[in-house]
Amino acid sequence: MPDLRRDPIVGRWVIISTDRNGRPHDFAQMQPVRPISTGLCPFCPGQERLTPKEIMAYRPEPAEANAPNWSVRVVPNKFPALQVEGDLGREGMGLYDRMNGIGAHEVIIETPVHKDSLADMPTKRLEDVLWAYRDRIIDLKRDVRLRYILIFKNHGAAAGATLEHSHSQLIALPVVPTSVMNEIEGCRLHYQHKERCMYCDILKQDLAHGERIVAENAEYACVTPFAPRFPFEMWILPKRHAGHFEESEKQHFEFLAPILSESLRRMDRVLSKPAYNFVLHSSPVHEKTGDFYHWHIELIPKLTQVAGFEWGSGFYINPVSPEESARSLREAVL
Amino acid sequence: MPDLRRDPIVGRWVIISTDRNGRPHDFAQMQPVRPISTGLCPFCPGQERLTPKEIMAYRPEPAEANAPNWSVRVVPNKFPALQVEGDLGREGMGLYDRMNGIGAHEVIIETPVHKDSLADMPTKRLEDVLWAYRDRIIDLKRDVRLRYILIFKNHGAAAGATLEHSHSQLIALPVVPTSVMNEIEGCRLHYQHKERCMYCDILKQDLAHGERIVAENAEYACVTPFAPRFPFEMWILPKRHAGHFEESEKQHFEFLAPILSESLRRMDRVLSKPAYNFVLHSSPVHEKTGDFYHWHIELIPKLTQVAGFEWGSGFYINPVSPEESARSLREAVL
Repeated sequence: MPDLRRDPIVGRWVIISTDRNGRPHDFAQMQPVRPISTGLCPFCPGQERLTPKEIMAYRPEPAEANAPNWSVRVVPNKFPALQVEGDLGREGMGLYDRMNGIGAHEVIIETPVHKDSLADMPTKRLEDVLWAYRDRIIDLKRDVRLRYILIFKNHGAAAGATLEHSHSQLIALPVVPTSVMNEIEGCRLHYQHKERCMYCDILKQDLAHGERIVAENAEYACVTPFAPRFPFEMWILPKRHAGHFEESEKQHFEFLAPILSESLRRMDRVLSKPAYNFVLHSSPVHEKTGDFYHWHIELIPKLTQVAGFEWGSGFYINPVSPEESARSLREAVL
Repeated sequence: MPDLRRDPIVGRWVIISTDRNGRPHDFAQMQPVRPISTGLCPFCPGQERLTPKEIMAYRPEPAEANAPNWSVRVVPNKFPALQVEGDLGREGMGLYDRMNGIGAHEVIIETPVHKDSLADMPTKRLEDVLWAYRDRIIDLKRDVRLRYILIFKNHGAAAGATLEHSHSQLIALPVVPTSVMNEIEGCRLHYQHKERCMYCDILKQDLAHGERIVAENAEYACVTPFAPRFPFEMWILPKRHAGHFEESEKQHFEFLAPILSESLRRMDRVLSKPAYNFVLHSSPVHEKTGDFYHWHIELIPKLTQVAGFEWGSGFYINPVSPEESARSLREAVL
């Protein structure tokens, strides 16, 4: 049973997941994780038996579960950081607080084609991936034990991907993660003073100035943040206030898929197809934060190594200004 | 001029340091930084002209500055993230806040011997390194623009070291970094309720239980934290309350050097000499936090890759329990 623990000083929760020792790794060797590019891929059609039984799949024609003819497929992570069954078991241990590592850890296989990348896929197929995110969030929201559902993607070994076949992951948690909570608290304070969403205010100022805009359409903007942690960090946000990603509708995804695709292609063009991570920050599941928190995607190419200074201080050194990175991304010829 | 910027949502300050582009790196290639093990090492005796002029050095016999006969030598970082001269230039830009990247960025060369590592050095020489940290903090504290002085070490390419020759770094900042501030705020709250230091309470509980103790002597303990972000994460703390590292005295360093050495050697033994980072968290320079904040060293072997989930959520997945890691570290035969 994995363990969820709260650091009593900063309030940071962590998963102690000793069960993951079954996963192939070797601390002593300190090899970066390499993607598998040979032989059997468990995410390829025809290999469905190599993953846990599917949770959901989109198929052009009706077929039985775990059959090969899917376009997007969602399966439980084979080495989950959290487990679905059980109760939370909240308890104190002297000064400390703990609870059981209850939650969900799923894999969204974004394409049946092994060599596809999100950036290269037709936007219609990218829309399906967004629908899969939405459908999974809506389903998991019904579980009252869960407080937060985080969707993220590791692309490339340097960004932490252990399998090459394009996929995202979903982790559903019984606590709201620190980073999101910090953002929410900042937004809450701003809203208390001004009755406005802070991301809306940021977007208004940035769209007026334009120097940190990477791409834009009727519904969404891709910007580089004023104070980015990482070079070429990008945020994709709805232009109109929206607290919950999963409340997006068809016409939204028709605009979100193209801007996500464009952002990835601009990044690939400028940075020669880097490894990258993205993460979807949406409002917590059962909290009323939708008025003042604004969902967004944070997209970060993996270019620099986070060393002692950054993790030790939460104070990042970024060698590229966001105005400079926005300009080169914006001016890239696609 | 580097730029210091505050993210208006979470309050995180970052340095936008475009001057560092002069440093050899190539975003497109995404090569991990490799240590230099051949030819000319700028940190070796005889090569003093390859570094900026020294700030301070310990020499067994009096000699002129930048001569070779030193045991510990402190020089400005050749590619500093901050610059010493100038005023803070605090200003608002609409929603945003910025100031100039004023501060110091120094390198503490810990040994004249290229192949030495902190773990292998006699503890008397490790004491000298601690004295150098103390002397530099005391000197920089006199600069009223500075709010925080952070000392950290990147050991090995995987942990972000760009030079092989053993060294630590010092960054002096005009703001208190987020991670330290979060710790201080947690401690402040605890103190308001209980009039006790939270780290003291933690130490008391952990020393009584013993299961997370790695090493211990009359003045210091090395523990694995209850909720570690990383496998084999260790904290070294004074057993008696102390807010400011730089107020340590001779008898303290005579106990701190051996426990730091022992912790590193236990780590090297269990994990086969991994790359690692450590960071010294002490009280801010001019704030009265010494009653409730407790200085400590955070030591983290670089074993896992921090991927999308961790940076996107501030919610770490750690595959080893701190009780398990403390036990193997404690039981290692040195």
